[in-house]
Amino acid sequence: MNSKIKNYLLLEQKIEKISHLNNLLAVSHWDCATYMPEGSAASRQKEISTLSAMAFEMMKSDEVKNLINDSMDESDFLDDWQKANLKLIKKNYENSVCIPLELEIENNLASSECEFVWRKAKQENDFKEVEPYLDRVLDSVRRIASLKSDCLGKDAYDSLIDSFDPDSASNDASAVFSILKKELPELAGRIIEKQKSEKNINFSGEIGEETQKKICLKLMDYMGFDSKYGRLDKSVHPFCGGTLDDVRMTTRYDTKNFISGLLGVIHETGHGLYQQNLPKKYKYQPVGQAKGMAFHESQSLIMEMQAATTHEFLYFISKLLSDEFGLTSSEYSAENLYNKINKVSRSFIRVDADEVTYPLHVILRFEIEKSIIKDNLKASDIPAIWNEKMKEYLGVIPENYAKGCMQDIHWYSGWIGYFPSYSKGAIIASMLMKAAENKHPSIKQDLRTGDFSKLNDYLNENLRSYGSVYSEKELLNKATGKDKVDANIFLNYLKDKYL
Amino acid sequence: MNSKIKNYLLLEQKIEKISHLNNLLAVSHWDCATYMPEGSAASRQKEISTLSAMAFEMMKSDEVKNLINDSMDESDFLDDWQKANLKLIKKNYENSVCIPLELEIENNLASSECEFVWRKAKQENDFKEVEPYLDRVLDSVRRIASLKSDCLGKDAYDSLIDSFDPDSASNDASAVFSILKKELPELAGRIIEKQKSEKNINFSGEIGEETQKKICLKLMDYMGFDSKYGRLDKSVHPFCGGTLDDVRMTTRYDTKNFISGLLGVIHETGHGLYQQNLPKKYKYQPVGQAKGMAFHESQSLIMEMQAATTHEFLYFISKLLSDEFGLTSSEYSAENLYNKINKVSRSFIRVDADEVTYPLHVILRFEIEKSIIKDNLKASDIPAIWNEKMKEYLGVIPENYAKGCMQDIHWYSGWIGYFPSYSKGAIIASMLMKAAENKHPSIKQDLRTGDFSKLNDYLNENLRSYGSVYSEKELLNKATGKDKVDANIFLNYLKDKYL
Repeated sequence: MNSKIKNYLLLEQKIEKISHLNNLLAVSHWDCATYMPEGSAASRQKEISTLSAMAFEMMKSDEVKNLINDSMDESDFLDDWQKANLKLIKKNYENSVCIPLELEIENNLASSECEFVWRKAKQENDFKEVEPYLDRVLDSVRRIASLKSDCLGKDAYDSLIDSFDPDSASNDASAVFSILKKELPELAGRIIEKQKSEKNINFSGEIGEETQKKICLKLMDYMGFDSKYGRLDKSVHPFCGGTLDDVRMTTRYDTKNFISGLLGVIHETGHGLYQQNLPKKYKYQPVGQAKGMAFHESQSLIMEMQAATTHEFLYFISKLLSDEFGLTSSEYSAENLYNKINKVSRSFIRVDADEVTYPLHVILRFEIEKSIIKDNLKASDIPAIWNEKMKEYLGVIPENYAKGCMQDIHWYSGWIGYFPSYSKGAIIASMLMKAAENKHPSIKQDLRTGDFSKLNDYLNENLRSYGSVYSEKELLNKATGKDKVDANIFLNYLKDKYL
Repeated sequence: MNSKIKNYLLLEQKIEKISHLNNLLAVSHWDCATYMPEGSAASRQKEISTLSAMAFEMMKSDEVKNLINDSMDESDFLDDWQKANLKLIKKNYENSVCIPLELEIENNLASSECEFVWRKAKQENDFKEVEPYLDRVLDSVRRIASLKSDCLGKDAYDSLIDSFDPDSASNDASAVFSILKKELPELAGRIIEKQKSEKNINFSGEIGEETQKKICLKLMDYMGFDSKYGRLDKSVHPFCGGTLDDVRMTTRYDTKNFISGLLGVIHETGHGLYQQNLPKKYKYQPVGQAKGMAFHESQSLIMEMQAATTHEFLYFISKLLSDEFGLTSSEYSAENLYNKINKVSRSFIRVDADEVTYPLHVILRFEIEKSIIKDNLKASDIPAIWNEKMKEYLGVIPENYAKGCMQDIHWYSGWIGYFPSYSKGAIIASMLMKAAENKHPSIKQDLRTGDFSKLNDYLNENLRSYGSVYSEKELLNKATGKDKVDANIFLNYLKDKYL
């Protein structure tokens, strides 16, 4: 052991232990969403709560505090990665120490109960059922935000955003979103008008789950996903979880519309590739983790939106469907797939939205969750304000809760402050693709043969392998050559593509 | 909170937390054996080791010690279950406190590494490969046994047996086994001779995995397994794990011989039914757990051997195969299934052995593992002594390691002292069936329609619902009317059935 950085190395060991626990929690969460028998949920929630609380207590312990302080004295001897890691550990400590253990436990329990009730209530379109559970979640989140705000001298809502998307603030998001909000409704209108003349053949046949899964696994392989260190399963709500060494992705299959499951897998594979290509050396340290959810979403969206919606990639898919799965009818032609996937419409569901209207769905949520924190919005206030904003931004009003304010899991799971990451991610994705194509002009052409290697090379070298060693601004600069998230690059990409 | 037993209730809370961690570990172990990607094993071993160590440290903490001592002062106010629970907690504490944390960690790591190497080495029939790993396991187990022996004033091997089968000692096992060893080889010979004239049609067709799984799930349902609180998956080595609220069973399927997978599932369902019918109130306390592995095996074997090998049950299975799965040819007749399942032979593999020769496989392992502890046997000594004893007890010598001393997972996973439970379990199963039929004479007849309700009623009332509240002797008495494990009841059962 290097004696000059003895305390720092002890700190790393302690953090590694905490990561071990969090990794076991991640597998347990995956199990809850995939294979756990229905009746086991209540017990499992308790068990997860106990272990989460232990990991939380370890993080805010005096032992960690003292090791951080002693490590600070060794900082002259730390390399850049170690310095960045120490800074991140310190930040995590400071964030944890604001929150009393009881509140952390209350927040975990309230969220997991609410999520559980929401699953059923959503199917039954019963907002009243979940309302008291959601209020309990919102209360605990507001208390956490307020304590963090006092403790860290930061805006309350910003302190929540920061836990998903570090170095980020709601003002930045507001600035970007105000540009999008101004331009997108009109742009969407023009595109919808233009697309009216396009041919669009509906899928007549069905594709069974087994076949869809085979297609997805093949595609994951083409995309560079290493199945030795990860897998694909089924769940009601697709996600990518697990650990860096054991990526657990899920999707759902619609036999009448295979595109939904396919794009889901492409999206999650983007997340998975980020996880699999983070710096292995620091896999148990914060500096080795992804740089927040905006960058994480940039990795899923560069695959789902920038790559998978192109003519080149859809040529490849159409050929794969025909050559290997005997799907040869015209509904599976590259052109028809392109038109279907890129069809812009004013719809209710965020995850099914096209890339043009998608940010409007996010802006609506961003504004409501800001209000939840700042204006103390109650659960019962949400449906009305949701529908009002849907009408304003998208011109449609959902006919029920399930297609409205009950569609997303986030708030019911206590994730407030997450939504801005999606649209920031979409913008970063468009910036990344531009930069990657500058470096490797054949990237799109390569997709005609399902070759993702140059795109992956670019992302591995300029983003994924950096983990969290840089600030948002530095990482953005390394990866895209720009210093800030630029909504105009995204808008220009949309205009070029659709008009 | 009842203030007279304040400390006891605090102790229960502490034990419940430890159980939460152990339950998460159980799900994680299940995941390792079923769905975990191959490359994730090394990281997962570390993560599991960290959490196991934490649970172990909590159990031997001063906090637990003090709560135990303070609870002892409250014992006048405890009910019988609480008293028994306190006694069991004290025993667990005393067992843990003998072992230094480092040795516990070493034992866990050595075992999980060895098990991992063994999986591959077994396929390649390469004993040399696994030898050093096995020696490391045996060393750590011997050190644990020796420390426990010093600490608890007990024979070293007995202290290992006790951790699987409480209140048990190798002398008891020796006494029972010496009867079996004397009688079984000759009995097996006579039965083999008698069976020579029986008709036995080989399976000509194959039954796919999907169909076999459907048959198994149907059967689990008939047997009373509640799938709301458990599930069936596939693994290389069948097991029943998980938790009381979330039973995870596995099997493997041989498309050319469906009986192997079917009997596997019936066996594991026996374990699962025990877990599902333990006293819910104490699900996180030791008093609410199964009364050791001999009783656990009695629950799997009463299903696999006592129930599933009967004419009545096989009539039901044959009818099920024909009515619901269109398997109507004579190879699936009740008579042919009976002859196949009850065929006695001198074979190599314990898990595939018939009920007559099965105890000989166990006795061989019992004698070797006793020698591992008492005579300091090395891994390299095992193959020769294995083959010698196979020759002596079963008259056959395995042609390779995979069919010999590498066939079972136990030693490679550090489980030394487990094997006697199997044969004790088989004997208890025969005693239980006799007692159950005395109470409900229609039990076997009911199996013709797949009706397990009276058998389950008997086992629930007289065994499963008692958890660990009684001593072995007391429980045996409640469940069978006898005070000791009686090999002669088992031998008489065999003679009645086969001769």
